[in-house]
Amino acid sequence: MCIMLIWFYCLLDLMILLLACRYGTMRDNVISLKVVLANGDIVKTASRARKSAAGYDLTRLMIGSEGTLGVVTEVTLRLQKIPEHSVVAMCNFPTIKDAADVAIDTMLSGIQVSRVELLDEVQVRAVNIANGKNLPEVPTLMFEFIGTEAYSHEQTQIVQRIVSEHNGSDFVFTEDPEAKKELWKIRKEALWACFAMEPNFEAMISDVCVPLSNLAELISRSKQELDASSLVCTVIAHAGDGNFHTVILFDPNEEEHRREAERLNQFMVYTALSMEGTCTGEHGVGTGKMKYLEKELGIEALQTMKRIKTALDPKNIMNPGKLIPPHVCF
Amino acid sequence: MCIMLIWFYCLLDLMILLLACRYGTMRDNVISLKVVLANGDIVKTASRARKSAAGYDLTRLMIGSEGTLGVVTEVTLRLQKIPEHSVVAMCNFPTIKDAADVAIDTMLSGIQVSRVELLDEVQVRAVNIANGKNLPEVPTLMFEFIGTEAYSHEQTQIVQRIVSEHNGSDFVFTEDPEAKKELWKIRKEALWACFAMEPNFEAMISDVCVPLSNLAELISRSKQELDASSLVCTVIAHAGDGNFHTVILFDPNEEEHRREAERLNQFMVYTALSMEGTCTGEHGVGTGKMKYLEKELGIEALQTMKRIKTALDPKNIMNPGKLIPPHVCF
Repeated sequence: MCIMLIWFYCLLDLMILLLACRYGTMRDNVISLKVVLANGDIVKTASRARKSAAGYDLTRLMIGSEGTLGVVTEVTLRLQKIPEHSVVAMCNFPTIKDAADVAIDTMLSGIQVSRVELLDEVQVRAVNIANGKNLPEVPTLMFEFIGTEAYSHEQTQIVQRIVSEHNGSDFVFTEDPEAKKELWKIRKEALWACFAMEPNFEAMISDVCVPLSNLAELISRSKQELDASSLVCTVIAHAGDGNFHTVILFDPNEEEHRREAERLNQFMVYTALSMEGTCTGEHGVGTGKMKYLEKELGIEALQTMKRIKTALDPKNIMNPGKLIPPHVCF
Repeated sequence: MCIMLIWFYCLLDLMILLLACRYGTMRDNVISLKVVLANGDIVKTASRARKSAAGYDLTRLMIGSEGTLGVVTEVTLRLQKIPEHSVVAMCNFPTIKDAADVAIDTMLSGIQVSRVELLDEVQVRAVNIANGKNLPEVPTLMFEFIGTEAYSHEQTQIVQRIVSEHNGSDFVFTEDPEAKKELWKIRKEALWACFAMEPNFEAMISDVCVPLSNLAELISRSKQELDASSLVCTVIAHAGDGNFHTVILFDPNEEEHRREAERLNQFMVYTALSMEGTCTGEHGVGTGKMKYLEKELGIEALQTMKRIKTALDPKNIMNPGKLIPPHVCF
């Protein structure tokens, strides 16, 4: 069981890493699962068809249940064709609100952008320190456009125009495979780069997600609070989804640091909830975000989850103590 | 309660109608639901964020549960921008396998086609009779390409090339709004057109779905059986999804007709299941497809569904007798 749980968590990690991948979230690309339930039953959640209306959607129920309903032992994924062509672009902004506005306008333009990633000036500073780079330390957007060659170019031009309408500058783009890899490395290594600023600190990593139209306001308000803090905090957003991540660096030996990190996290969550958002867009609940679920969904939703948990795992042996707050009963 | 149930079924119908809409299935465009459960609890299944990892995915659990877990009273949908430009195209094929192969190759080409609809020659005949048209009575594909003007044109050209590689002919396309509406009317009124062939008959409408790579084989084998039958049967497929519908016309007063319709339906379902498909891609289980679920998913999956049903509706008052076969217990 132990090995399987490790297997599951590796898988979960992989999924989280891939969540920021092309073609929507990883969740959308899962066709079917094989799951071992608490009673030992092995359940196939769906056929291999792209869509199905054959009974309850056990696949989606299991995804994101964080091991509390069963152990995933097999995943059937939808394969996606490698795009014929792609362009990676990057540009800078005087304020983070400008950057967020561009992400929103890009999504609303109707073009199917593959990736839109936002890094704040602190995150760019971390990248500079970690990788000996000399990027302008200002809010930055990174894009990937995919499709045919002509369509990738057209998307690039459309977004370049949107960028210029929102005070953006230094718009660069590349089609060269090595140069593209080098540019995306900035985003991919963002988390590890943070530790270059405070090598002996730990990171509290949190994510929230709001309706896209509220993203600029959420980021602006959160940034104000993060910048005013004594702790170093960076912002990375999957801006196309309204999803916003913070890395808060703190000294694990300093109780005050921990409290401050927790306060900032809570500020972000409450701000997101006040904008009809969620306390976590990707990372999940675990134990850290259990306390926000009732405010987000109401006690009735949590009682429903608890009923399902109890029905499938009456002895509470699957990842106990996670996801559903302990005070919830029915 | 009665009014709410009617509300729910209207909604369900609306969803089914819209399932064939652009941008994937309707299911993908549901952000959140408000649901009344059997115990009277009103549950909000999710926030308004585009993605969330905040607990079990109650939204997906409720979608497709066919009223057996609760009554949907409110739906929050993701809005999609009206495309800047669109092109509608149509073309003909000597065999239905050629048409299905084009649908598959189009999807595998990597372009994001908005709609790919396949009509067999019987369905086209029905359209001709019902609407006084003179379309060639051969397997026919209809496409919609959306995006920027340049990209819509590029998609049209790419698909025109694929069509010519598979013996396709009479490729026509239009960008004129009225002409586009007129072309889509053919597809939209397909079901009603069938009754022009047999005005006093009823229709058994069934759908199955298989992995895209198996669609051509499924359609070819099913067509052989349908053509050999004494009943008139038409084929319509959302070919881009591997989803395949049949309309079987039968005289409700003839027991033999009913049996033959049921036999054809069963043939299609078993053929789809033998290809790792599902007994229903869109229409749902109801009572008609209950008997196929165990073969598709295994008894353990059905027992899991029954456990969830019992946990949320212990008195079995929500649309009883539907979806979960009566022999399933745990």
